[in-house]
Amino acid sequence: MAHIFIPEGIPGIVGPMMMYPDTEGPLNALAEALLRSSVSLKPAERELIATFVSRRNECVFCASTHGAAARHLYAENPSVVDQVCENPETAPVDEKLRALLAIAGKVQQGGRNVTAGDVERARRAGADDRAIHDTVLIAAAFCMFNRYVDGLATWAPDDAAMYAQMGAKLADHGYMRSVARDMSVEPSNN
Amino acid sequence: MAHIFIPEGIPGIVGPMMMYPDTEGPLNALAEALLRSSVSLKPAERELIATFVSRRNECVFCASTHGAAARHLYAENPSVVDQVCENPETAPVDEKLRALLAIAGKVQQGGRNVTAGDVERARRAGADDRAIHDTVLIAAAFCMFNRYVDGLATWAPDDAAMYAQMGAKLADHGYMRSVARDMSVEPSNN
Repeated sequence: MAHIFIPEGIPGIVGPMMMYPDTEGPLNALAEALLRSSVSLKPAERELIATFVSRRNECVFCASTHGAAARHLYAENPSVVDQVCENPETAPVDEKLRALLAIAGKVQQGGRNVTAGDVERARRAGADDRAIHDTVLIAAAFCMFNRYVDGLATWAPDDAAMYAQMGAKLADHGYMRSVARDMSVEPSNN
Repeated sequence: MAHIFIPEGIPGIVGPMMMYPDTEGPLNALAEALLRSSVSLKPAERELIATFVSRRNECVFCASTHGAAARHLYAENPSVVDQVCENPETAPVDEKLRALLAIAGKVQQGGRNVTAGDVERARRAGADDRAIHDTVLIAAAFCMFNRYVDGLATWAPDDAAMYAQMGAKLADHGYMRSVARDMSVEPSNN
């Protein structure tokens, strides 16, 4: 049971977002800006970074939802998502993304861990300022989202099909309020 | 030097916010909603929770800025801010805030650390759902802001008077875009 009142059957972050609309708006707008942009990083890469950080934070709801969104976007090779979570240095991604995942892993542990060498490696592989900025902020934001979801002990369903459906919807339609709220209705009807 | 280009003399989070307006808007709106509300928690208590978490994350810029905002709001006893950061269990705050600070400390380490007992203690001392929700999200959000500021190696000035001025401005006028941008101009003119 969650630490605060949330209507029954509402999974993960959707419950506190429904109950607290003052913060729902900025949180959804932040996710939309960070995960749906195509500037310097593809949406698939953005969802993959979010999944990687959520997995390291052991946040089942976020890792499952964004993992499903990433698999939906990596339609030709969805297994790359699990491979990156297991070991980004050996996963079949390009050196630019690998270097950015290394930065995201440092940020997950704490911002002060990122070194000039980590950033230089990413630049050598083609990452520009925007890619580095967005990687740091996606990793930082998921350190927030993961703590929000788990710090309130929200419900993480154990239903891969539900996550696949939510992930595909988010990947295709984004994070703005109406979509996230719409998403929340379906699991409770299962 | 910061890991990405930021105009000279711009401190902390202000630089990446100026350079990346797509995420600046949601980040400021989130800070405004979490730190300036008076529902269930006073703004002084909200700034104190933000300072406490930033200090634990060793984020000098955020801890100094929000510490100054909290001291401005605790005008009759500004030393409470340092006392809480040293040990919230012995600091001169009421049991409700003490219990919420304990929850914030758990969230700083990871969301899964918050127990039903932690929440029950806060409820017995008078915390309602909104206070618990906002405490968890303030703590989670500063795990993001701190990582954003330090993950990009932004500049943390060593100038207590500047932080006092910024903290007072934020406490009095809030976090919306024009204020934060206005704030950014002054240090570079010093």
